[in-house]
Amino acid sequence: MAVLELSTADQLLVVSGDTPLLEIWEALPEGLFPPFPPVGLPGGVDGLLQRGGFGQTFFFASEVLGLRFRAPSGQVVHAGGRTVKNVQGYDLVRPLVGSFGALGTVLEATLRLRPGRAWVFLRRKGELSEPPLKPRFLWQELHWTYAFHFGHPKEVHRFREGFGGEEVRERPDYTGWFPHGMGVGMGNLMDLRFGWVDGGAAPEMPAPFRRLVEALSAARGAL
Amino acid sequence: MAVLELSTADQLLVVSGDTPLLEIWEALPEGLFPPFPPVGLPGGVDGLLQRGGFGQTFFFASEVLGLRFRAPSGQVVHAGGRTVKNVQGYDLVRPLVGSFGALGTVLEATLRLRPGRAWVFLRRKGELSEPPLKPRFLWQELHWTYAFHFGHPKEVHRFREGFGGEEVRERPDYTGWFPHGMGVGMGNLMDLRFGWVDGGAAPEMPAPFRRLVEALSAARGAL
Repeated sequence: MAVLELSTADQLLVVSGDTPLLEIWEALPEGLFPPFPPVGLPGGVDGLLQRGGFGQTFFFASEVLGLRFRAPSGQVVHAGGRTVKNVQGYDLVRPLVGSFGALGTVLEATLRLRPGRAWVFLRRKGELSEPPLKPRFLWQELHWTYAFHFGHPKEVHRFREGFGGEEVRERPDYTGWFPHGMGVGMGNLMDLRFGWVDGGAAPEMPAPFRRLVEALSAARGAL
Repeated sequence: MAVLELSTADQLLVVSGDTPLLEIWEALPEGLFPPFPPVGLPGGVDGLLQRGGFGQTFFFASEVLGLRFRAPSGQVVHAGGRTVKNVQGYDLVRPLVGSFGALGTVLEATLRLRPGRAWVFLRRKGELSEPPLKPRFLWQELHWTYAFHFGHPKEVHRFREGFGGEEVRERPDYTGWFPHGMGVGMGNLMDLRFGWVDGGAAPEMPAPFRRLVEALSAARGAL
């Protein structure tokens, strides 16, 4: 598990699939942020990508610039590149993101980093609901709603004023909450997309996607 | 060809695949912008999605919220939904975007609209290069570089000052430039991804994507 490359100039990160999310947070310089909040979650980057992210209020998959993954056939597939400009079509990055393991295992991912001169990590009592000023990340843990936001100092200040609550001083590690895997269901953790529960299931797969899975599961020789 | 729905509240647009791009620009209210510049291009929305957009400096496919498309098998596939929150995984929207026709024909698309209180449409002499302040759309036509930008009035003003050039007063219609179809090659039109040429080709398809195409080309009964 490793941060393989960190480019502040290109604002991107290359990591192995098994890198823990909090390890990435440790490695990042001030002022650059990954597409996930400062929490620990099972399965590292591979797990995060399989589940389609956590807590984000933006389109998560666009932050994944490139992937190297092992398809169910055993074949290693390279998809995408290093920049948004490299997104030239024939996109196999996006179907893997949020495929809950069906398309294979992420060996290496190139993630976009976003700049922000200020950040704030808050929680307040109460159930998840979208505040008028949307933070980058929002989720519910038991009866607390957590928000992590970054960006322009003024905007971050405005968010802090509007959201209220208290500062979060430690990065929550939820990894231990999911000894049987993190899946979808009614549990103690929730974001705008799903409830997350220990041993929970993958969402139901639509039929056309199942055919894509079959295509990438075919024997190595055929690929 | 039709704008089937325009929701200013949800900031989205539902259009049939054959709707011309300039017709959409006509239909939009002040202050809401689609994910393509005010130009005419062959094939309407279907053509635009097949080619992965035109002139954008952002990740185009995230602006496509949902699709109804006819797969090569003849089957009609529904993918995605109406909101970013509906992007819950098993993503078949993104592989279609930029697939150059290989995954079928777009019958209907739900596109995200973005708000902006100001806009500017400029061109200046010279070859395409990324200006320090990036507009939403940037392309080269012959020896002119065109830029369309929208957003906060201050930011739009700053862009105008930096970019220079002259105002573009008519929406260019490039449809007639491509009687044999708009494909990739060295031509009179160019954006940050590709050169575009009459009768041009599709970019080469990677092998794993070809298997996805085969999967969606299989007989109707099998889907």
